[in-house]
Amino acid sequence: MNQNNQVDIEYRVAGQPHAGKVLAVIGPHSDDFSIFAAGTIAKLIDEGYTGYFIRITNDEMDSYDLSTGETILANERDTQAVASVLGIKKVFDLNYRNHYLDEVPPTEIRNRLIFLFRLLKVDAVLGFDPWGHYEENPDHYVAAQATEAACWMAGGRLDLPEHFEAGLTPHSVQEKYYWARGPQLVNRVVDVTGFIERKMEAIRANKTQIRNMALSLRDRLATRDLTLPWLDGDDENVIRNYVDLVFRARDRHTGEIYGLEYAEAFHYIGPGEQSGAFLARHLEEHIQKNAVPLDKDSR
Amino acid sequence: MNQNNQVDIEYRVAGQPHAGKVLAVIGPHSDDFSIFAAGTIAKLIDEGYTGYFIRITNDEMDSYDLSTGETILANERDTQAVASVLGIKKVFDLNYRNHYLDEVPPTEIRNRLIFLFRLLKVDAVLGFDPWGHYEENPDHYVAAQATEAACWMAGGRLDLPEHFEAGLTPHSVQEKYYWARGPQLVNRVVDVTGFIERKMEAIRANKTQIRNMALSLRDRLATRDLTLPWLDGDDENVIRNYVDLVFRARDRHTGEIYGLEYAEAFHYIGPGEQSGAFLARHLEEHIQKNAVPLDKDSR
Amino acid sequence: MNQNNQVDIEYRVAGQPHAGKVLAVIGPHSDDFSIFAAGTIAKLIDEGYTGYFIRITNDEMDSYDLSTGETILANERDTQAVASVLGIKKVFDLNYRNHYLDEVPPTEIRNRLIFLFRLLKVDAVLGFDPWGHYEENPDHYVAAQATEAACWMAGGRLDLPEHFEAGLTPHSVQEKYYWARGPQLVNRVVDVTGFIERKMEAIRANKTQIRNMALSLRDRLATRDLTLPWLDGDDENVIRNYVDLVFRARDRHTGEIYGLEYAEAFHYIGPGEQSGAFLARHLEEHIQKNAVPLDKDSR
Amino acid sequence: MNQNNQVDIEYRVAGQPHAGKVLAVIGPHSDDFSIFAAGTIAKLIDEGYTGYFIRITNDEMDSYDLSTGETILANERDTQAVASVLGIKKVFDLNYRNHYLDEVPPTEIRNRLIFLFRLLKVDAVLGFDPWGHYEENPDHYVAAQATEAACWMAGGRLDLPEHFEAGLTPHSVQEKYYWARGPQLVNRVVDVTGFIERKMEAIRANKTQIRNMALSLRDRLATRDLTLPWLDGDDENVIRNYVDLVFRARDRHTGEIYGLEYAEAFHYIGPGEQSGAFLARHLEEHIQKNAVPLDKDSR
Amino acid sequence: MNQNNQVDIEYRVAGQPHAGKVLAVIGPHSDDFSIFAAGTIAKLIDEGYTGYFIRITNDEMDSYDLSTGETILANERDTQAVASVLGIKKVFDLNYRNHYLDEVPPTEIRNRLIFLFRLLKVDAVLGFDPWGHYEENPDHYVAAQATEAACWMAGGRLDLPEHFEAGLTPHSVQEKYYWARGPQLVNRVVDVTGFIERKMEAIRANKTQIRNMALSLRDRLATRDLTLPWLDGDDENVIRNYVDLVFRARDRHTGEIYGLEYAEAFHYIGPGEQSGAFLARHLEEHIQKNAVPLDKDSR
Amino acid sequence: MNQNNQVDIEYRVAGQPHAGKVLAVIGPHSDDFSIFAAGTIAKLIDEGYTGYFIRITNDEMDSYDLSTGETILANERDTQAVASVLGIKKVFDLNYRNHYLDEVPPTEIRNRLIFLFRLLKVDAVLGFDPWGHYEENPDHYVAAQATEAACWMAGGRLDLPEHFEAGLTPHSVQEKYYWARGPQLVNRVVDVTGFIERKMEAIRANKTQIRNMALSLRDRLATRDLTLPWLDGDDENVIRNYVDLVFRARDRHTGEIYGLEYAEAFHYIGPGEQSGAFLARHLEEHIQKNAVPLDKDSR
Repeated sequence: MNQNNQVDIEYRVAGQPHAGKVLAVIGPHSDDFSIFAAGTIAKLIDEGYTGYFIRITNDEMDSYDLSTGETILANERDTQAVASVLGIKKVFDLNYRNHYLDEVPPTEIRNRLIFLFRLLKVDAVLGFDPWGHYEENPDHYVAAQATEAACWMAGGRLDLPEHFEAGLTPHSVQEKYYWARGPQLVNRVVDVTGFIERKMEAIRANKTQIRNMALSLRDRLATRDLTLPWLDGDDENVIRNYVDLVFRARDRHTGEIYGLEYAEAFHYIGPGEQSGAFLARHLEEHIQKNAVPLDKDSR
Repeated sequence: MNQNNQVDIEYRVAGQPHAGKVLAVIGPHSDDFSIFAAGTIAKLIDEGYTGYFIRITNDEMDSYDLSTGETILANERDTQAVASVLGIKKVFDLNYRNHYLDEVPPTEIRNRLIFLFRLLKVDAVLGFDPWGHYEENPDHYVAAQATEAACWMAGGRLDLPEHFEAGLTPHSVQEKYYWARGPQLVNRVVDVTGFIERKMEAIRANKTQIRNMALSLRDRLATRDLTLPWLDGDDENVIRNYVDLVFRARDRHTGEIYGLEYAEAFHYIGPGEQSGAFLARHLEEHIQKNAVPLDKDSR
Repeated sequence: MNQNNQVDIEYRVAGQPHAGKVLAVIGPHSDDFSIFAAGTIAKLIDEGYTGYFIRITNDEMDSYDLSTGETILANERDTQAVASVLGIKKVFDLNYRNHYLDEVPPTEIRNRLIFLFRLLKVDAVLGFDPWGHYEENPDHYVAAQATEAACWMAGGRLDLPEHFEAGLTPHSVQEKYYWARGPQLVNRVVDVTGFIERKMEAIRANKTQIRNMALSLRDRLATRDLTLPWLDGDDENVIRNYVDLVFRARDRHTGEIYGLEYAEAFHYIGPGEQSGAFLARHLEEHIQKNAVPLDKDSR
Repeated sequence: MNQNNQVDIEYRVAGQPHAGKVLAVIGPHSDDFSIFAAGTIAKLIDEGYTGYFIRITNDEMDSYDLSTGETILANERDTQAVASVLGIKKVFDLNYRNHYLDEVPPTEIRNRLIFLFRLLKVDAVLGFDPWGHYEENPDHYVAAQATEAACWMAGGRLDLPEHFEAGLTPHSVQEKYYWARGPQLVNRVVDVTGFIERKMEAIRANKTQIRNMALSLRDRLATRDLTLPWLDGDDENVIRNYVDLVFRARDRHTGEIYGLEYAEAFHYIGPGEQSGAFLARHLEEHIQKNAVPLDKDSR
Repeated sequence: MNQNNQVDIEYRVAGQPHAGKVLAVIGPHSDDFSIFAAGTIAKLIDEGYTGYFIRITNDEMDSYDLSTGETILANERDTQAVASVLGIKKVFDLNYRNHYLDEVPPTEIRNRLIFLFRLLKVDAVLGFDPWGHYEENPDHYVAAQATEAACWMAGGRLDLPEHFEAGLTPHSVQEKYYWARGPQLVNRVVDVTGFIERKMEAIRANKTQIRNMALSLRDRLATRDLTLPWLDGDDENVIRNYVDLVFRARDRHTGEIYGLEYAEAFHYIGPGEQSGAFLARHLEEHIQKNAVPLDKDSR
Repeated sequence: MNQNNQVDIEYRVAGQPHAGKVLAVIGPHSDDFSIFAAGTIAKLIDEGYTGYFIRITNDEMDSYDLSTGETILANERDTQAVASVLGIKKVFDLNYRNHYLDEVPPTEIRNRLIFLFRLLKVDAVLGFDPWGHYEENPDHYVAAQATEAACWMAGGRLDLPEHFEAGLTPHSVQEKYYWARGPQLVNRVVDVTGFIERKMEAIRANKTQIRNMALSLRDRLATRDLTLPWLDGDDENVIRNYVDLVFRARDRHTGEIYGLEYAEAFHYIGPGEQSGAFLARHLEEHIQKNAVPLDKDSR
């Protein structure tokens, strides 16, 4: 790959430098909001961002022993609980079918995201990496591609211009944090050490899906005639143990690689970098050297 | 890529350690079964696996001088011949149009694979790498994506639950061997030295498609006013020469890179590795350290 | 990636070694023809190629202050101007909707390209890299995938055989130059030093889209209460300055990496390399060693 | 239309002439099972049929004041209640998105219906008329077209043959009762006089959707500064009044047209009539005249 | 068809009974606004309606001798001219590709119409009949189906609820006038005698498309070695003659059938009639008989 | 329906009035060419037409006991045999999947038909009625809609203009004969009395599909413990008997309705009638009255 392999570490910054800015987390499923980036979300909100969740599917497939209708309702409520833990202002549920996002026309999802990005004036998005190799869940890459395209098309004067009649204005998204489950071009690692307990709490709020993971582990162990003592506890304890065993360990592991206590890894794309970092830097250097104050009267 | 570049060598193992296990080879086309992985297929069956072929297309485009109908029938029969050489138990022909797999809804192919994985209780699949860069044939990546998603959805309690009324049960696929024609994240190389003659025989059983390759080479050479003496032989000899020239050479070349006589290369994903190898290993270590025998009476 | 990282430099060659050969540039948008590869296009035409443009979309979204209809007409005319600068024989406008290429059935675009590749007897294509990571514009990767598949299907005897009734013949494309905006497996860098002024002129011919870029920069600067003095000039000067600032700089930057004055970078795939460079080379070595003159009388 | 306008009246028949036969009602939405054909369903089950419901969507859009998740769960439960009133053996919920059935690939729904028709050995279906003119809800006509095609393809030996490995056999549906909301070629009217109270009870079991209809009527009246006294009652009474006002009245109206007390109207297609009633009748006459007992030993 | 064949005549009414109401004409193409319903549009606006045009395609295929870009711009301008003649407040151009509307996902067009119907608070629509038999242009029936579904879904509280965050509210369309070119269930004929000259002027404003019709007629006549004297005039006269010859004649012909001077024919669906006229009438009779004034304080 | 119910009888005409004209029969399946219109095809060819078959699918589902590959080849050959009986010049097999035509993008099929209509300069088409009510086979209505749209788009100067570079010219189809299996707006009945034996021979040439029909009838009778004596004969006799029993009877039945010995029924659309017969007639009357000889020199 013709990309340098430099990885930037993003540390917590003091104060509220991002006050007035808006972030949206685009999660195909309820537990995507907590598992992959809750530390970074908590940090960015702590630094001033106003945050929104956009949940793309209805999570209808993910529970241990509920009916489809019960599963959907439980996950709808869990998402609100995750949002509450992280200080999210509002959740938008798009409610597409879980596991079936690759049969929704890409432009349909995209158009709804363009509307939301304009409505909320989103500055930064967090979501799945559209180029996360060996991602097995189509919901993940379909949501990622729709997000990526909506980020810049939302800025288009001639894209869905009827929105402007309702008082919206063109508004493109400037920063993207992409997470992945498998191989990815990581170039940004966020130090979430100060937010790890908040993150663990957020993940535990996905009780329907975490309980499914834990009890499925119990069932797999049973086929080997084994069990883990903590799997016999009540739901709250099972969930707490599972979250620490798996998710705390993973963020610690990521941290170790980069010399941090706990970390989340991303492919990050900043303002103007869609055609490579060189052009963004080159242009900014030109501006720094040559720009003059705007004489507003003369225009 | 944030993935270590370790490549594991998979050697032949003695006995039948895989007895009772089932593998399915998902080939968009008849010659995919023989060219890319026949050595590994032969090895795994030799080690105990029961094997199935799932042929996704009808191979209607691939012959030298047959009509479309003749081409389809010839390749249907060749596939049976390849299966016979490799000891495959049954071939499932899905018969989608060759070269047109990207216009079939992804969920339709996937749903049929979910049914087959549950029906056959498939433990391992072999097929094209969904992330094989610069793969020019849409049939290849479409089949690969459908396979990848079906592997885990087949384990879902709420996915296509009507199947369970017919006696099937949720069943997810645990191991995946992905091959590619171009750049790929190779992490598993299989030593097929002991199975190379079986593989050559399997490829020769694809006589319709290999004959097409050989006679097309002859035609290309003719535009340069050249020929190769062996291209004037009868079909059997032309096919034998072509297979040795091209396919034996390629496996020898792959072997040389990894210090083996003959080898096939894959991106391999093992049980629990869909979110990275770390979590799979970490969880197993926890189980090794903490698991206790299951007291079945207490449940 | 199991691909060596060797990068070949393609220098200008004397004379017209490519006389009689045909190239097609597949650009989703009008400015793709000039920005990414105009140097290489100019060089290849200078070396004997006959060149065609195939513009996939109608560029309806890209202008600074025109209506949709005015934008389409302006870009239609600009494309002709770019073609004229570069000595292109003819432009084919397919006129799909700009920003919406991912809702066109892939086979529909592909079938039209197959027709054009057969009609024009195309030997080489230039276009977007179908594996250019983090490409945010769906028009780019959709056009790229259609091109890639059409290149080899155009050679199929049983693909769209009705074309042959109109006098066309099977004809596959032998060489591909793929450009990208983001991370890419670059293996070919073209020295365009001698063609850089032609390229700058070609880019300036995209006056509608370059003016949009420049005035959008002016608007972004205005939100920081800044401007650049040259942004107050007439359109011609604004365009000239912008093109030098951005596009001349980028090709110089690419050149520097590879020790050239100005360069364009590509992923290149040559004849017979679709299954890897090894097989292409191995086969050619066999031919060199064993081929005999074709005795035409004997056939 | 080249179809005679004869309308057959289907009266209740004594005994259980349909014992051993199976019917499936294909309803896109929960209230379709009760509103359009509950009288006929009750009558046919009374006459011996075993009945199944296949609910195509998740009814996520239809409630008065519930969240999406609550709406889905409420309608899932209401459907079970309707089934219980009518003596239905089992409900299959396919759970596609309400209002979005026209973006599901037709073959995907059809393939699932083919599986179900084979699994349940369905002899008769009831559902929307695929040719009901001016039907404004795409869910209705998409479900109808999928049903119609699945009815005969389920009998195909070469359609989805993998089903036969799971013990299913080809099985085509012989009779179809199609209902419609608007203009339709009615040729069968069912006397449901004896089942009207059961039908009213079934409709009331759709309490979520009927309550929505009633309270929406209240809201519309409020915009005219009017109300109806019974709209102030508790939910049970509101629902009872609404069902009598609207649905009892409609079936009485249909009955009046055909000289019955209460009736439901259909376009009916019987065994062998897919190419017109003439051929079915002509063939049966030939059989009556010429058929001989089958000498089973000779085959 | 189980629909009575009564045809209602809609005469001009005095005053502005429709003041405060909004109509939208949904035309796939520029000339649909003028040819099929300009008389009714003019009449309804004269009676108080505020009117909007929603043009679905970009009309790129329809001109006599312009390039694609020129054609699009010319038709964009002609549509404004038609709107101006008829007193339309604003034109919304959706700009889908002419002749290709059947490859746009139906939900994408529908979602945009739902947004517009809510934004403009549309009370009545005019457009193609989704059940106009033997309609050969897919643009016509695709636009019609999208319109029909959007009319009621726009009233849904759970359909695209993000719109409500931008200040829109659920709003369903109450009246539909559907026109057709071929066989149709006509039930409403509008007397446009007083608006025929305005209509002729509106049609002449589609000068690009009418000129294409007229000169194509000239070309067809030329193949018979004939011409019509008026076809040699200037464009303005050719257009005037053609419009009188064809379109004035057709409305006169429709008028003759129903005893009027000039008329336009529709399939009309009024408030509450989606499940048939009986229920709408029955419900209104119940309201007339039983409704009481709303005691607003008690709620 | 606002269409008069007049039915025109088309009798055999003497001589070769159609010499120089071209017809294409668009059949989704092999037996569609013979069963529905072989009499009319034979008649029109006898009257001078040159005829072509365009077979849309590969007929892979239709045989009694063959594999998929064998079925496709058998039907490919049968179609040639039917063509031979009827004097058809050439068969074009598009080879889409039988039973799956509704998952092919409509524009893809249409574009291929546009190419063929231009290539062959088709004047008349025969095919399924796109408005044949209760048609249960999606292959039938999808092929019909594609045909209908291609007929006029083939005449478009701006539709697929790349065709014109290969020497084709815009060419629209003037006449359409649509057949149907169910209710249809019949307005043309063709007297095929003189061609009935040729038709029976053509149907018998579909031996694979007719044998499937006959032996399926035998199997259905066997479930009633019955058989027909002639069903025990050899294939040739079984086919002959079945064809006479079913297809001869049907054409005789159609004939009886219209006072003919044998007849085929159609919905016919003639030149210029796409907007109704009135305008076509009105325009022609104007031409008859006002047209003058074309002075070619003056243009």
